[in-house]
Amino acid sequence: MLGSDFQARLAAQSRLVDDFLTEALARFGNDDVAQAMRYAVHGGKGLRGFLLLEASALYAVPQERALYAAGAVEAIHAYSLIHDDLPCMDDDDLRRGQPTVHKQWNEAIAVLAGDALQSFAFELMTAKTIGPADIRIALVASLAEAAGARGMVLGQAQDIAAETADTALTLAQITELQSNKTGALLEWPAHAAAILAGQDPAPLRTYARAIGLAFQIADDILDVEGDSGKAGKALRKDADAGKATFVTLLGLDGAKSEAARLVAEAETALAPFGDKAETLRDLARFIIARDR
Amino acid sequence: MLGSDFQARLAAQSRLVDDFLTEALARFGNDDVAQAMRYAVHGGKGLRGFLLLEASALYAVPQERALYAAGAVEAIHAYSLIHDDLPCMDDDDLRRGQPTVHKQWNEAIAVLAGDALQSFAFELMTAKTIGPADIRIALVASLAEAAGARGMVLGQAQDIAAETADTALTLAQITELQSNKTGALLEWPAHAAAILAGQDPAPLRTYARAIGLAFQIADDILDVEGDSGKAGKALRKDADAGKATFVTLLGLDGAKSEAARLVAEAETALAPFGDKAETLRDLARFIIARDR
Repeated sequence: MLGSDFQARLAAQSRLVDDFLTEALARFGNDDVAQAMRYAVHGGKGLRGFLLLEASALYAVPQERALYAAGAVEAIHAYSLIHDDLPCMDDDDLRRGQPTVHKQWNEAIAVLAGDALQSFAFELMTAKTIGPADIRIALVASLAEAAGARGMVLGQAQDIAAETADTALTLAQITELQSNKTGALLEWPAHAAAILAGQDPAPLRTYARAIGLAFQIADDILDVEGDSGKAGKALRKDADAGKATFVTLLGLDGAKSEAARLVAEAETALAPFGDKAETLRDLARFIIARDR
Repeated sequence: MLGSDFQARLAAQSRLVDDFLTEALARFGNDDVAQAMRYAVHGGKGLRGFLLLEASALYAVPQERALYAAGAVEAIHAYSLIHDDLPCMDDDDLRRGQPTVHKQWNEAIAVLAGDALQSFAFELMTAKTIGPADIRIALVASLAEAAGARGMVLGQAQDIAAETADTALTLAQITELQSNKTGALLEWPAHAAAILAGQDPAPLRTYARAIGLAFQIADDILDVEGDSGKAGKALRKDADAGKATFVTLLGLDGAKSEAARLVAEAETALAPFGDKAETLRDLARFIIARDR
């Protein structure tokens, strides 16, 4: 398992992003939508914001500039979870151990709070502190692409289509689906850090693409192994739904070695950065070692 | 009634925005979400995009620069209609005489198509053709504010809260609600045109604020008079729901004179622009003369 240094750093950086979001969200009032927005952005592990801060640190981007993009990616992530949890989507009552937004308020507030968090994310990207206007515009453009109908939303739609399809997805199809649904928003922090630094995004994007896929494979493994008492049930549920996962396609051992291979690939991509990238290496290992 | 010149110009300019959106939306694939996005942006009157093109013309902003913002405001408007029509919101089956997106596809696709149209609107604002990066960033910032939890989404939430409240709204409250719900996105085109031109947005915003409110008052009047056979039913429905409208608060005659007063106010705000602003004057008159 990972050292306590990494865990402490993850917690501290996530708290910074949390505090930044608390202050930034103060611009809104105290009506239900504003309360739901605040409720939804807090309480997660903050992996995307953490990745953004660490990737920015690697390029020596001052943290006060990087915090806006870290806040934006967490706001987009929070909006996507609110909408994914809706009854017409995944229909989940609990998220991060708390009632989902539509259970705590209602579906209308959940739709609106998600909508407003997306606007808020783009608004954050316009702050002067971030840097020159051309950098801010590049961040807006890349975030819109990652979040929209060629990225996260496309992946979500592919996931829904897969649930009602007659045939299970192939490995190539599920890899594409996940690279859109989860990968786009895990890659964006690496891309954004390079934009902030005015550097070539390629090396860090290779890293981020690998950990994004490893993240999803680890999720599928956790669905089977996370609660040993429920492992069979979880597997049967997916099989009944005809839904392919990395575990059904590769087997449990195959999925574990693929995840490990991707972590190694991610570490290799960090080689040019030397020792400075140790936290990002830890993050890659953490992604397949976490318990959720 | 308004001359055929104005109607022809409205139709021609709206077609320009429609064609622009068709081309811009080609970047997405042909899955259900992309199809639903295309379905939703077409078929309206295109008032917001028209307002943007005409306000930009007043400042001699080249049309090719203004089209991006015109497309963006229509994309945001389309997303808001998709989400407003959802069963958990206004629960409407028809929009512009066609099945709403959740009837034509399903609720999940409707949530996702709306989400993706919002991302798309912000992506449009990053195009180099629009002008220098600082202008594009100012457009992103003002659009995010108009669309989000201090603008359109706030108004929508206030509208929902009003429907379940014990007491009917006052005139001041309904004016504030509507200035958020409908007004913010009708004002933004005027603001955006001034940003594109590097001019003071104040005069055109006064105009836009007045026509935005007149637009909503006209809507309330149309709810009563639009179909004479259903007038009583529509009125009773609102009264039963305890929902205040400009007509219930001001009376039919009072609402009509308030709408006319606002149109006069809008025309006065255009005085500095002289004859060049004739189309915008026609638009102000059209807004209270239209039949939907």
